[in-house]
Amino acid sequence: MAVYTPVEAAQLRDFLQAYDLGDAISFKGIAEGVENSNFYLETELSGTRRAFILTLYEKRAPLAELPFFIGLMQHLVRANFPCPQPIAARNGETLLTLNGRQAAIVSFLPGLSVDPPLVTHCQQLGGALADLHVAASDFPQTRINRLGPEFWAQTAPLLGKQAQQLGAHQTLNASLRAIEPHWPQDLPRGIIHADLFPDNVFFREQHFAAAIDFYFACTDFWAYDLAIVLNAWAMDRQARWHPKKASAILAAYHAKRPLSEHEMHALPILCLGAALRFFLTRLHDWHATQAGALVKAKDPREYSAKMSYFLARLDSGLDLADFWS
Amino acid sequence: MAVYTPVEAAQLRDFLQAYDLGDAISFKGIAEGVENSNFYLETELSGTRRAFILTLYEKRAPLAELPFFIGLMQHLVRANFPCPQPIAARNGETLLTLNGRQAAIVSFLPGLSVDPPLVTHCQQLGGALADLHVAASDFPQTRINRLGPEFWAQTAPLLGKQAQQLGAHQTLNASLRAIEPHWPQDLPRGIIHADLFPDNVFFREQHFAAAIDFYFACTDFWAYDLAIVLNAWAMDRQARWHPKKASAILAAYHAKRPLSEHEMHALPILCLGAALRFFLTRLHDWHATQAGALVKAKDPREYSAKMSYFLARLDSGLDLADFWS
Repeated sequence: MAVYTPVEAAQLRDFLQAYDLGDAISFKGIAEGVENSNFYLETELSGTRRAFILTLYEKRAPLAELPFFIGLMQHLVRANFPCPQPIAARNGETLLTLNGRQAAIVSFLPGLSVDPPLVTHCQQLGGALADLHVAASDFPQTRINRLGPEFWAQTAPLLGKQAQQLGAHQTLNASLRAIEPHWPQDLPRGIIHADLFPDNVFFREQHFAAAIDFYFACTDFWAYDLAIVLNAWAMDRQARWHPKKASAILAAYHAKRPLSEHEMHALPILCLGAALRFFLTRLHDWHATQAGALVKAKDPREYSAKMSYFLARLDSGLDLADFWS
Repeated sequence: MAVYTPVEAAQLRDFLQAYDLGDAISFKGIAEGVENSNFYLETELSGTRRAFILTLYEKRAPLAELPFFIGLMQHLVRANFPCPQPIAARNGETLLTLNGRQAAIVSFLPGLSVDPPLVTHCQQLGGALADLHVAASDFPQTRINRLGPEFWAQTAPLLGKQAQQLGAHQTLNASLRAIEPHWPQDLPRGIIHADLFPDNVFFREQHFAAAIDFYFACTDFWAYDLAIVLNAWAMDRQARWHPKKASAILAAYHAKRPLSEHEMHALPILCLGAALRFFLTRLHDWHATQAGALVKAKDPREYSAKMSYFLARLDSGLDLADFWS
């Protein structure tokens, strides 16, 4: 829900002169992403209209890493994975400066986000996630996951009071204790999306159409990406587990990139870790934005409830039957 | 900057079944308007794509008056004045219910807002404002201007403390004292837009393309609408008067709907009143939204500075030379 940096018509006109896209005929701020300013942009060149998204990267964006994200999207488009295509300016650059911000134009993709997803969407998504992992597997760059287990161990003590205010202190500590000795070390790794929530996925007529918002992409266990997706797609906001959705995601994924036994057995602890990761960042944002912000923070309690679910199942001996209904 | 009521894909699909527009292929919240939830909507029917704006009217909208606004836009479209066209559902209705809100679909219009406007935009706008007044002159409905002089007199005492905090208390009181005995009673009246700021006007290649956001439209002096426009287009945010822009607006307006001597002589006091109107509502919103809101309120001091400008010129004998440079 985000337009932090307004762009005036004259600034846009000057900016577009660096591209071969023609003149702007529509330009509207859109409520997408919570970190950057995004605009719907329509241009006309020799009678042909094309639609784009213009993004201005705000100060919270990891500016030094923008070339990684842009390069990844370019790589995926070349590998026929549907995602926004970064548009090069006439000088070949995909990152320019606009109104004091780094800025990029990417193709606008049709499609609708679905929330809550049905089983059929989950099946589509599972296959698309495997496609994404395979398509990115020969992308030559890497990026550390800064929001991984080390981050959790460092950040949790700093947010103890805030967790207590939400009654999630015990769940937080128990999760950290459960994860620390059991987090896997040697699962198959590659580029993961790391934020593939329903609002970052477009469908057309029940078919997966595109994934967007690659600004958390990094190098980590592929199965961890699957765990993030299971938490976001196969559990509702009340932390109720939907075995049919989980099974649809896993079966479709497995058909395209077979999961090893090792990966399958790691899923429960990966799901707990994925829940912890979103709990911590939501908890931070929740308290940081309570007083007078443009962005409505997401409720961290959704993810402490998900942590509780996985903790209880781990304690009582959660097994793969919970994932394959 | 507004999406207060989210719409899920399934809700949208059900809603669109009441229309003959086909299926949604794109749907994005847009940062437009501060009162309602607005979405960019693209549909496809038999291979033809069309773009629309879907609006969900939030609780601050005058719900009982939505038929007036919708009817006015329909009337203007029929009179060839470019503005959003309300789309009728299959049952002929233009106002339906979606997610507990009244909702309407209007045509999406290409074009760009220009801020700050150049003299050429001001000239275009002056002509378009006269076109709007003439096109709406045979619209059979009327609507009281609830934000007129009576509202100012009632509201100002309630906001005295807030005005004082911004150092605008004296300017506020002096404006009320100047307006009360001198506000005109008998100028030509009709439907006015009443909020025709640059962000509510689209241009294409320097030509006026459309006016949007008719939700303040009401029946009042046509010249008062001109005063609102002069304040918003011919004065910058530092309350500096741009005689060439004012002159361009007035000349283009006058060429299409000639202003009487009486109207011209009333312009200075109308401009003071128009400045007071936006000062008061901004002052209210400024304090109402300081703590934790989704919307960034506009600075009321821009309009107290404009009030000061007109007060000073009225005291020193402002005359029409200030408007016709």
